[in-house]
Amino acid sequence: MEQSKAIIVNQFLSAKRKAGKTFNEIAKETGLTNVYVAQLLRRQAILTPETASKLKAALPHLSDELVDEMMKPPMRSYDPNLIQEPAIYRLNEAVMHFGESIKDIINEQFGDGIMSAIDFYCSVDKVKGVDGKDRVVITFDGKFLPYTEQVSTFVVAHYN
Amino acid sequence: MEQSKAIIVNQFLSAKRKAGKTFNEIAKETGLTNVYVAQLLRRQAILTPETASKLKAALPHLSDELVDEMMKPPMRSYDPNLIQEPAIYRLNEAVMHFGESIKDIINEQFGDGIMSAIDFYCSVDKVKGVDGKDRVVITFDGKFLPYTEQVSTFVVAHYN
Amino acid sequence: MEQSKAIIVNQFLSAKRKAGKTFNEIAKETGLTNVYVAQLLRRQAILTPETASKLKAALPHLSDELVDEMMKPPMRSYDPNLIQEPAIYRLNEAVMHFGESIKDIINEQFGDGIMSAIDFYCSVDKVKGVDGKDRVVITFDGKFLPYTEQVSTFVVAHYN
Amino acid sequence: MEQSKAIIVNQFLSAKRKAGKTFNEIAKETGLTNVYVAQLLRRQAILTPETASKLKAALPHLSDELVDEMMKPPMRSYDPNLIQEPAIYRLNEAVMHFGESIKDIINEQFGDGIMSAIDFYCSVDKVKGVDGKDRVVITFDGKFLPYTEQVSTFVVAHYN
Amino acid sequence: MEQSKAIIVNQFLSAKRKAGKTFNEIAKETGLTNVYVAQLLRRQAILTPETASKLKAALPHLSDELVDEMMKPPMRSYDPNLIQEPAIYRLNEAVMHFGESIKDIINEQFGDGIMSAIDFYCSVDKVKGVDGKDRVVITFDGKFLPYTEQVSTFVVAHYN
Amino acid sequence: MEQSKAIIVNQFLSAKRKAGKTFNEIAKETGLTNVYVAQLLRRQAILTPETASKLKAALPHLSDELVDEMMKPPMRSYDPNLIQEPAIYRLNEAVMHFGESIKDIINEQFGDGIMSAIDFYCSVDKVKGVDGKDRVVITFDGKFLPYTEQVSTFVVAHYN
Amino acid sequence: MEQSKAIIVNQFLSAKRKAGKTFNEIAKETGLTNVYVAQLLRRQAILTPETASKLKAALPHLSDELVDEMMKPPMRSYDPNLIQEPAIYRLNEAVMHFGESIKDIINEQFGDGIMSAIDFYCSVDKVKGVDGKDRVVITFDGKFLPYTEQVSTFVVAHYN
Amino acid sequence: MEQSKAIIVNQFLSAKRKAGKTFNEIAKETGLTNVYVAQLLRRQAILTPETASKLKAALPHLSDELVDEMMKPPMRSYDPNLIQEPAIYRLNEAVMHFGESIKDIINEQFGDGIMSAIDFYCSVDKVKGVDGKDRVVITFDGKFLPYTEQVSTFVVAHYN
Amino acid sequence: MEQSKAIIVNQFLSAKRKAGKTFNEIAKETGLTNVYVAQLLRRQAILTPETASKLKAALPHLSDELVDEMMKPPMRSYDPNLIQEPAIYRLNEAVMHFGESIKDIINEQFGDGIMSAIDFYCSVDKVKGVDGKDRVVITFDGKFLPYTEQVSTFVVAHYN
Amino acid sequence: MEQSKAIIVNQFLSAKRKAGKTFNEIAKETGLTNVYVAQLLRRQAILTPETASKLKAALPHLSDELVDEMMKPPMRSYDPNLIQEPAIYRLNEAVMHFGESIKDIINEQFGDGIMSAIDFYCSVDKVKGVDGKDRVVITFDGKFLPYTEQVSTFVVAHYN
Repeated sequence: MEQSKAIIVNQFLSAKRKAGKTFNEIAKETGLTNVYVAQLLRRQAILTPETASKLKAALPHLSDELVDEMMKPPMRSYDPNLIQEPAIYRLNEAVMHFGESIKDIINEQFGDGIMSAIDFYCSVDKVKGVDGKDRVVITFDGKFLPYTEQVSTFVVAHYN
Repeated sequence: MEQSKAIIVNQFLSAKRKAGKTFNEIAKETGLTNVYVAQLLRRQAILTPETASKLKAALPHLSDELVDEMMKPPMRSYDPNLIQEPAIYRLNEAVMHFGESIKDIINEQFGDGIMSAIDFYCSVDKVKGVDGKDRVVITFDGKFLPYTEQVSTFVVAHYN
Repeated sequence: MEQSKAIIVNQFLSAKRKAGKTFNEIAKETGLTNVYVAQLLRRQAILTPETASKLKAALPHLSDELVDEMMKPPMRSYDPNLIQEPAIYRLNEAVMHFGESIKDIINEQFGDGIMSAIDFYCSVDKVKGVDGKDRVVITFDGKFLPYTEQVSTFVVAHYN
Repeated sequence: MEQSKAIIVNQFLSAKRKAGKTFNEIAKETGLTNVYVAQLLRRQAILTPETASKLKAALPHLSDELVDEMMKPPMRSYDPNLIQEPAIYRLNEAVMHFGESIKDIINEQFGDGIMSAIDFYCSVDKVKGVDGKDRVVITFDGKFLPYTEQVSTFVVAHYN
Repeated sequence: MEQSKAIIVNQFLSAKRKAGKTFNEIAKETGLTNVYVAQLLRRQAILTPETASKLKAALPHLSDELVDEMMKPPMRSYDPNLIQEPAIYRLNEAVMHFGESIKDIINEQFGDGIMSAIDFYCSVDKVKGVDGKDRVVITFDGKFLPYTEQVSTFVVAHYN
Repeated sequence: MEQSKAIIVNQFLSAKRKAGKTFNEIAKETGLTNVYVAQLLRRQAILTPETASKLKAALPHLSDELVDEMMKPPMRSYDPNLIQEPAIYRLNEAVMHFGESIKDIINEQFGDGIMSAIDFYCSVDKVKGVDGKDRVVITFDGKFLPYTEQVSTFVVAHYN
Repeated sequence: MEQSKAIIVNQFLSAKRKAGKTFNEIAKETGLTNVYVAQLLRRQAILTPETASKLKAALPHLSDELVDEMMKPPMRSYDPNLIQEPAIYRLNEAVMHFGESIKDIINEQFGDGIMSAIDFYCSVDKVKGVDGKDRVVITFDGKFLPYTEQVSTFVVAHYN
Repeated sequence: MEQSKAIIVNQFLSAKRKAGKTFNEIAKETGLTNVYVAQLLRRQAILTPETASKLKAALPHLSDELVDEMMKPPMRSYDPNLIQEPAIYRLNEAVMHFGESIKDIINEQFGDGIMSAIDFYCSVDKVKGVDGKDRVVITFDGKFLPYTEQVSTFVVAHYN
Repeated sequence: MEQSKAIIVNQFLSAKRKAGKTFNEIAKETGLTNVYVAQLLRRQAILTPETASKLKAALPHLSDELVDEMMKPPMRSYDPNLIQEPAIYRLNEAVMHFGESIKDIINEQFGDGIMSAIDFYCSVDKVKGVDGKDRVVITFDGKFLPYTEQVSTFVVAHYN
Repeated sequence: MEQSKAIIVNQFLSAKRKAGKTFNEIAKETGLTNVYVAQLLRRQAILTPETASKLKAALPHLSDELVDEMMKPPMRSYDPNLIQEPAIYRLNEAVMHFGESIKDIINEQFGDGIMSAIDFYCSVDKVKGVDGKDRVVITFDGKFLPYTEQVSTFVVAHYN
């Protein structure tokens, strides 16, 4: 992560610590998913004007300047070594080992296209398994984007 | 993918084509998730004896020899270039960009630990969004594995 | 490129050679962009039923079996060494060196979001520069995809 | 990006913020493409003496020293992790997946050669699609460079 | 290793140096394995409340603030160049060269599954070989995690 | 793995399948560790003349030619993609995340040196944990190799 | 190198062996540089119609079919491991170690721009050094390409 | 580039700026090639005592301490990202695409051996092409190093 | 190289400069090989108590604190870009190109095993070749480590 | 290794097996170092006409055709995975960990320059250590190549 982004993220996370609230609590107060709250605090998502006032109410130590920063389109990024973290590696392992199967089923159910990672929701939930043990449920919910047929109905650039 | 594994996978997928059934239909007949059916056919999961008969019923062109092969622990693998496929890249992008947030929430909800990728369920579903458009919902559901404190209650190896 | 895909692509390109037509001529006959025609012949795009008959008319040596193959969702891929080709490297160089600027302008003109690579058109055109020399004009035209705010209006998976 | 380059770029972008103008506005005042304006401010392009006065008029907070810096040939560079940014990855994905097709069409239309990335124009535009939704149009316009036949009409180095 | 983590680890290791105790001595006083003690001091493992008081007794120079830090879930990481160290490379060499054999035997003894790296113990011991020379014995002891069959007994997300 | 090595390994493993014995059973008959048996069959270890007759007794389908092959020093190797296999990745994860700690303890217990990966034993065992569940115990047991001080007591090469 | 390209290159080089001529001899007969002759035979350059008859005269075993192949725009490529070859590594070493200096001098002598690798000549010559020993002289001679200022004199694509 | 090397290089280049001379002018005054002058100023080459006084005369702002630094064998290095710079990439592209041809011709003209990158001259020159346009001519001139046959005429090390 | 290690190495090398002695002179005074002296000063080897007093006599500016540091087991490391240095690349080239041959001869002369890099001597010497020119002789002298047969004479860990 | 090279190497090594001689025996009969003999048989070195007859005498099963092949300049190469082999990795480890020290001593003893890897001898020998155990001695003996000062005494290419 670039130096200046890291500094801002620390200030965001500090406001959360001072508020003494969990991601789930902030999610409830703002009407967002818990993951989206975390993404906002890590400068990986943009804050809309409508939600800004709710977030300021939830995190009173967030200065107006920091809220303004959160409302600009971020440069999305990650440290490539992040994949070393077992919690994150397991997700990557699942995606790569299940990838072809997931694509096959999307194609069969929807046709030729992909799940959008932009018009996309994510949440992390805690459920009980049949053995009574805790389970982590991560939901990826993205708009289906069909490949478009590229018809030649546009006129290309030319010089004046 | 190694040569011999590719040959077997082609035979598995051919049995599905001959049966003329979707992954969802086979899932319903076998009581499995649709992704697990696809993983079996790609030799990325093991078939249990209880499910073997149901799968044979669902895919009549699957020879006994192929079913036996499916009941051995597979060598799980993927072609590293698979990440070029847009459908699979989007999943990887989501995991890497959302990774730290997901870990933060797991830690907050469950404590120090990870979502298992072994005691793990995955399914792909089709839902309608509020705009009436199709959405892809991918569910990752894994047992929470807490890190254990390594207490020194075992005796180490020594020579006789 | 995987072995079997390479074989099919050779058959597609052979049908074009036998027809003795350029990409532009086939584009005109099918109503597609010239790049989309090339993508179809390289098994990087899917053929729609409406266009199939036009393509068969344009490329009479294309067997029905090959046309059927073209109508399945392809596994999109490329040889990583392709970037060695100077014609392709120059494109990559432009994208990487201009990348931040392009993102800045998209953000300023459209807000937080990206150009889709799925709902996406591409064409290659030949124009004359002010010095009378030939210029290559490559047009990338993709739908703007705004990042969605992830509101918590969906209910997560739970066991029955 | 190297330390000293990053510092200068921040000063350039600060002059733009103080002027309160968009890339398009500066482009109109200077007669440049919007992307070229952004490249100048990111120290990825050189400023010509003719345009310098127009840019100074457009961005009054740009000191003479900074303008002088902008008139030296830059070291062109990018952070390899930039490809993580979805807006930039999509461009790269398009280039790599469409690369062979684009080369084929260039060869068919122009002969053996490439699109120059040096005598090269780029712009980002906002258009409406047939569904009334916004689309991003990125135009790459480069001189065609034919491969030269290397005839042996020059005399090589020798010692005096 | 990230800057701030390195600073904390230096403070942890300094507390050990001031106490003048070996990893084995601290292990004995805390009831942990020697490797787990080292992992705690390198911020690669979490300290439980039960063990915290024992560790504070063993390492009196450890401030309460540092102990609190040790009780948060850590970001697990390593410098990729660590593999250059001969002591660590030899372990990696053994794992990669023996990997397929170890998997084969796990599959034969336990069925389809893996050794957990989370519910996992590790210790380093010193024994005498038959030639009277010192030998290093490293014990990896992890819970067996069987792959689960993914039965379709859960209901997926849908919108309200 | 190189082509010819893969062919021989298949013949070795086929002899095991025909004998219908587990690695543990062959280990017991030959007096070797179970991992060493597997390494022999994967052409990653050398067979000694003393053990050859025991192995031939244990695996009667092993031809004399194959036994001769097993008695030559092998080219030790592995497919770099092997690390994708979860069973093997977990080992690698443990080694890399625990690496510095293991080195610290070796240095404290033994002084400056490493665990040999050549004069090295490995075994895989099945034990019951305190919760009655199966655990995998992998033992790495290598000679301690102290770094030698390089005293200048040898005379270097010179021409006659 | 791709399979089919390797086969054609072998046929080209075979025609040279049968003719029993050196690259220099063929260069003299065709009026090309010696390096360009070699590039033609390795399918890394295109043959012009004017030169085709001279090359056929120089290499009588070159079939018309092979000559036709040589007249198509090639896919330019190289095996990344080629850099292992000491003769080629030394060139790469020189380019990377001298790179910044060469750029500095080009910028000082010519302004902001690059040496074209497309309108480009290369030859290898043998000269005597002042010590009477053989020296290899490699000449790179490319057109200077100045960066163009991107003026906004073109109209972008729009839909009809 | 390492921190301390970068600082020294900046001081060298500053002395050149203060002298207000081009690389070619300094080359003329010192009797060196223009590239060697640049390499000296980038701490990639060593200054000989004979040339030191000429360089001091040419660059009066070069302190004695800096000249002393220039007379020590440097650690030769480059930033791997340097290859992003189009001016440097084009050189690398030429070397890799022409590599096999250059080797073939060296072997044919000189026998088995390479061009030295140590006893090596390099210069950058500006010439006019037949179309009257500027061309960059880069000359690599290195001693031919024949591979030696390794005859066994030396006696190896043994202990006293 | 990590920050703190680099600082210590600079202090070590400074003590050498102040003493005004060559590696060979220090080697003679301490009874070590010249390479081992250099490794000590680069914090890549450990200093024994017996040699410490000799080294202090040879390098009087070495403080007691620095000598103590030198007597701790070091973290052995190198900058991966070090391979760019021609002097070091040539060694790597030799090792990789001659590697299989060296292994073959070790196997033929000694049996299955390797040359230890731990019980290992290295020296650099200057000799005259038959042509009277200087030659560099680098001697690698390591203990032969035979692979051990892993007999099952140890008892594994189990819980009490 | 490329396919055709591997085939020839197998034929070379087969001739050695049929002769039933060691590398040392062939070295003695041909007057070469043992490593050079192995390099010839692995197609990594060129055979001189003077030595050809001795080699044919030593290896009578070597056909004239194979000997002719050995007399052509080879394409020197290695499989990058070769570094996995412990015998070869140890050499690489030594070179990288000792690299800076070796360069320092070469610079101190010889001045600015490198050890040639072309005018280069290598041998593997077996000696007894002071503890009576076998040691491997690998000798690298290369001509010292001083960096040349690049004086501007040559005239560059120009057009006629």
